[in-house]
Amino acid sequence: MMKYRFSLFVFCCLLVSLPSFAEDGYRLWLRYDPIADQAVRTRYQAALKNVLMEGDSPTLVAAREELMEGLRGLLDTNVPFNPAVQDGTLLVGTLQTLAPVGELNLEKPLRQVGDEGYLIFTTKLKRRNVTVVAANTDVGVLYGCFHLLRLLQTHQPLQNLNLQETPKLDLRVLNHWDNLDRSVERGYAGASLWKWHLLPDYLDPRYREYARANASVGINGTVLNNVNANALILTEEFLPRVAALANVFRPYGIKVYLSARFSAPIEIGGLKTADPLDPQVQQWWKKKVDEIYGYIPDFGGFLVKANSEGQPGPQNYNRSHAEGANLLADALAPHGGVVMWRAFVYSNEEPEDRAKQAYNEFVPLDGKFRDNVLVQVKNGAIDFQPREPFHPLFGAMPNTPLMMEFQITQEYTGQSTNLFYQMPLYKETLDADTYAKGKGSTVAKVVDGTLEGHRLTGVAGVSNIGDDRNWTGHPFAQSNWYGYGRLAWDHALTSEQIADEWLRMTFSNDEAFVKPVSDMMIASREIVVDYMTPLGLHHLMGWSHHYGPGPWVTDKPRADWTATYYHQADSNGIGFDRTKTGSDALAQYFPPVQEQWGDPKTCPEEFLLWFHHLPWDYTTKSGRSLWDELCHRYYAGADSVAWMQDVWQQQKSKVDADRFQHVATLLDIQKKEAIWWRNACVLYFQQFSRRPIPDGLEKPDRPLSYYESLEFHARPGN
Amino acid sequence: MMKYRFSLFVFCCLLVSLPSFAEDGYRLWLRYDPIADQAVRTRYQAALKNVLMEGDSPTLVAAREELMEGLRGLLDTNVPFNPAVQDGTLLVGTLQTLAPVGELNLEKPLRQVGDEGYLIFTTKLKRRNVTVVAANTDVGVLYGCFHLLRLLQTHQPLQNLNLQETPKLDLRVLNHWDNLDRSVERGYAGASLWKWHLLPDYLDPRYREYARANASVGINGTVLNNVNANALILTEEFLPRVAALANVFRPYGIKVYLSARFSAPIEIGGLKTADPLDPQVQQWWKKKVDEIYGYIPDFGGFLVKANSEGQPGPQNYNRSHAEGANLLADALAPHGGVVMWRAFVYSNEEPEDRAKQAYNEFVPLDGKFRDNVLVQVKNGAIDFQPREPFHPLFGAMPNTPLMMEFQITQEYTGQSTNLFYQMPLYKETLDADTYAKGKGSTVAKVVDGTLEGHRLTGVAGVSNIGDDRNWTGHPFAQSNWYGYGRLAWDHALTSEQIADEWLRMTFSNDEAFVKPVSDMMIASREIVVDYMTPLGLHHLMGWSHHYGPGPWVTDKPRADWTATYYHQADSNGIGFDRTKTGSDALAQYFPPVQEQWGDPKTCPEEFLLWFHHLPWDYTTKSGRSLWDELCHRYYAGADSVAWMQDVWQQQKSKVDADRFQHVATLLDIQKKEAIWWRNACVLYFQQFSRRPIPDGLEKPDRPLSYYESLEFHARPGN
Repeated sequence: MMKYRFSLFVFCCLLVSLPSFAEDGYRLWLRYDPIADQAVRTRYQAALKNVLMEGDSPTLVAAREELMEGLRGLLDTNVPFNPAVQDGTLLVGTLQTLAPVGELNLEKPLRQVGDEGYLIFTTKLKRRNVTVVAANTDVGVLYGCFHLLRLLQTHQPLQNLNLQETPKLDLRVLNHWDNLDRSVERGYAGASLWKWHLLPDYLDPRYREYARANASVGINGTVLNNVNANALILTEEFLPRVAALANVFRPYGIKVYLSARFSAPIEIGGLKTADPLDPQVQQWWKKKVDEIYGYIPDFGGFLVKANSEGQPGPQNYNRSHAEGANLLADALAPHGGVVMWRAFVYSNEEPEDRAKQAYNEFVPLDGKFRDNVLVQVKNGAIDFQPREPFHPLFGAMPNTPLMMEFQITQEYTGQSTNLFYQMPLYKETLDADTYAKGKGSTVAKVVDGTLEGHRLTGVAGVSNIGDDRNWTGHPFAQSNWYGYGRLAWDHALTSEQIADEWLRMTFSNDEAFVKPVSDMMIASREIVVDYMTPLGLHHLMGWSHHYGPGPWVTDKPRADWTATYYHQADSNGIGFDRTKTGSDALAQYFPPVQEQWGDPKTCPEEFLLWFHHLPWDYTTKSGRSLWDELCHRYYAGADSVAWMQDVWQQQKSKVDADRFQHVATLLDIQKKEAIWWRNACVLYFQQFSRRPIPDGLEKPDRPLSYYESLEFHARPGN
Repeated sequence: MMKYRFSLFVFCCLLVSLPSFAEDGYRLWLRYDPIADQAVRTRYQAALKNVLMEGDSPTLVAAREELMEGLRGLLDTNVPFNPAVQDGTLLVGTLQTLAPVGELNLEKPLRQVGDEGYLIFTTKLKRRNVTVVAANTDVGVLYGCFHLLRLLQTHQPLQNLNLQETPKLDLRVLNHWDNLDRSVERGYAGASLWKWHLLPDYLDPRYREYARANASVGINGTVLNNVNANALILTEEFLPRVAALANVFRPYGIKVYLSARFSAPIEIGGLKTADPLDPQVQQWWKKKVDEIYGYIPDFGGFLVKANSEGQPGPQNYNRSHAEGANLLADALAPHGGVVMWRAFVYSNEEPEDRAKQAYNEFVPLDGKFRDNVLVQVKNGAIDFQPREPFHPLFGAMPNTPLMMEFQITQEYTGQSTNLFYQMPLYKETLDADTYAKGKGSTVAKVVDGTLEGHRLTGVAGVSNIGDDRNWTGHPFAQSNWYGYGRLAWDHALTSEQIADEWLRMTFSNDEAFVKPVSDMMIASREIVVDYMTPLGLHHLMGWSHHYGPGPWVTDKPRADWTATYYHQADSNGIGFDRTKTGSDALAQYFPPVQEQWGDPKTCPEEFLLWFHHLPWDYTTKSGRSLWDELCHRYYAGADSVAWMQDVWQQQKSKVDADRFQHVATLLDIQKKEAIWWRNACVLYFQQFSRRPIPDGLEKPDRPLSYYESLEFHARPGN
């Protein structure tokens, strides 16, 4: 008789995966599985018995679909439409559609929430307890529906609701650095979502999912193509395809923008020049813009990278950035479009500290831009490092709306293999005080227009989205897309609030899961800074692909593309002197900032080597020498990844096997990479410090030459 | 009181999609949903009540997982393991594991099925009715399990089974033209599956699904990288990553192969030469191969494209292809590896008809290759056209195993937007008679070794697989992957059988669906030939991207990269004279073939203009002039796409909405593209024929200049 191994068989059965039902992350945070906690579900079922919702615009249809799918899923029951108001009715709509229902008194509160805001409140209507989602516009209704669903997904009470939401910024935009061949510059999550070769006919169902996800956090614009732009996107080969995407996104309140190549009049227009003051050029752009609006009546406008890293621009014709931006702005103005003109410029010849160049270039142009131009400024003056001081342009151009640019994709912060929750970085920048108009003149107030009274405001996030099944490569990188959108809507939210929401929606409401994992997310930023670029170091990454450490990178076409330019390590010490004795970049900040950061004693230690070149035996706040402190930070960073691994391992029973294993594997990789960063940097800097790695810290098991010899081909995102 | 629109609400509810449960094609043909026909399901439940299966090798675990998942899904019940044989027991295993069960008398029949074959039969055991899946090896068991599941998926009877299966070819291999940066040459289904930057640590769950799909049709090898090879794949940066993939594939009987760049000893070995007779070079390859086997003990071997389209090769050193192939073969032989040496060569200087060059190059080398070399020959002598006569090398190298190379990816046959079922093309080639040893010397017999008694045999298919969610871009392109594998296993299967199987497994067993859609698939090949390259025309496609028509392509770096070189249209007529009065390529075929094809009167019309330049008023078999017949074919082809659209529209109620709509949209695109091909080609050739488009055929609504002016940027796959 054949023996059999029952346990093996059972094991096999459990192993078997049903591919299409796998928890592969495709649903992002929009998960509407039945609420497991029956008490919570029962309460919600009682509070939301049926829905009254009028109107059939595409946006309202989208809102209704979302609400119905969400309620049916979360409450595990069909929530019917019902014409009779009763206890537990949910009323959803605009002033117009809700007016016939009765005395809801919406006029006054709606006046305060603007075009995109909404109200969610509980009230008595005809002596019945009802919940109301109301807005001035259809898209406001859509946003309100997503908010209501979020309350359910995160198990919030529905009694005595009185929410009033208005976005603090007008333009909440994603920047896709997607090329027309579907490669994505600095993309680590697969190819571009946009399947140009199948558009405009075939609409990948994913386009709608993308729009849903964005609308759920209030993102209302998307720049489809790379800022290193190909002019072909503006031709009739591509415009119908752009229009097809715009049609999918429109019901979700998302406008399409394009990156415009400044030399397009030459490349696709057959002109001899792209000089912004040339009437033919002006005429060409006017006609081109008219053509675009023929395809896309609500086209958002242009994003432009000009005279930067090889891109053409107005300076090719001895014109200013303002003259360049205004050329496009004038063409767009009749249609209501805007120009987002990037301030990320640095000259090919200029021997000046790169950190200073954008300021020098743009401050003199303050006030010279048209009303429909925003100058888009990266959070810091170098380039999306794990930590940078806020960009000195914030507060320095009071007459120009400045749009914040964050980089959601992790070019310099671990690419697709490092768990790096970015909200602490964004918040640090937004909460920083420029002192432009005295204490409390935060970067956030500059960007949201309240400091200087700007009408037009915005924020851009460089997308981390690709066609990987889970959209962002690393499952936790979804939190940066989510969080970016939430902060774009309301920069007063805390990193903790956002992590809490996202974890509950994406994984679990189990408090024993949410708290430790949220702590891990919050800590992840400082951990990455510690093992990559502690104490204000910056730009230490590998050449070109920007993967892993490269503090030895030197002798490149430009000094400011090397690492040695930035860390300035020598036998005396380390750090970039940006005080008066050095490049004096500090002078670009307002006096209280200069004062604090100008003295190493008062400069926050996280910016120490950004602004100061200090001797290896300089005494840091811990009492350790600078060298010892540097080592200590590198080791603490790498050790903390092991802590992150521990935290995650403890969640095994609380999350699905697929995502658990994916994150666990990526944390294993992150651990290796953190040790690699630590060893490479400590060994490299040790050549200059000529000091031992402090006692108690494990010595690297390979020599510096090993780390210097590593090569990485076929890295994604170049 | 608020009105409400019940129907709109219901409509919205129906519209709502649950993204992760969508019929997105990810499951391919391995769909194990409960059999809807209850009578069928009940019969199967009675026939397969429990399973006896011993053994715990990784392959047997994989087989058991598949069987359990499949039976549980299809039968909609748990099929238990049970030690007592009863009516309805399924016994699965090898001679060793099944021997203890009793008198199954497996020895003799198993002797006939070889290492990869299997038996499936019903019998009485201890007076019980049982079903047996038996094989000599674990992988044979796995294949048998997939076969049994296929019987269920296609609703075949399980009574009186007596199946005995053995693959007709040894090496059944996919060739991935995947680059290390995840671009795919001639790939139309997204980026490469291989996420090199996350390997070896992170194993995408998709790798296992890929292995399952291949094993289910008997594919047992995969070449991971492009034949236009990058030597880096052979370095220690990549080999651990290759090994990680090999580990995933191994339980599924799939060996990993690599494309080797002939100049690797120079590029990564630091040598000054790659001369195959240089002892240092020989030593380098020996050590490199030893190193590879250190990582991958069952490494399959190398695929090589040498001295072709710019690739380096032995001729750089005045050595022959045989000397080049033998260099690698000698290094691989001690480990049991093979070399697959491509015959797709044509000289840079040679003014000879390109169709003749591979034959001229390789026939003199017959018998000079090592035993572990196969020469890999494309199905036709030009390059994967919609139709080509079989390659004259088949039958012409009796002392050398010739491996067939088909192109599954649709480079020249509509890329990702045309429904083109390729089995009729493959079968046409395999069934063609070379007359090498008299009548009946089919290409299939050359390839399967029976004609000339070869031990080593194989077939390669250039993969159409990418990381698009449905793997192949076009839902029907899955049938070409499936069918390629099925024919690789058994080339005697008919196109109809394979279409029938695939449709039932992939979509539905509804006869009213299977029959018409199968007819459409079968017809699709001739339809594509008609609107692209009828009557033996070839190489008419657009420049470089090979998308759409380009009969005007001329004046390129090589004459044989143009269209005009191949169609030779002039005011006298059209076609490439490959008879004695022309290039005499016909002389490379055996006399009976020469005789038939050499005379336009007996030459099959599908090859007419391949071999003959004929006047425009030449009378074709239909009685029409050549010009009229050409027009007629182009129009019939395009019209037939409308018929395909009709056939598909009638299936709306029979397939899921997601895939229905996807295919419907792609057929809309195919219709446009067919008309584009038709109009462009007819207008172009009309310049030479100076004859009207026959009465009754709709005139193109745009001039030739319009079609010539079209440009296509950012086409995938270049």
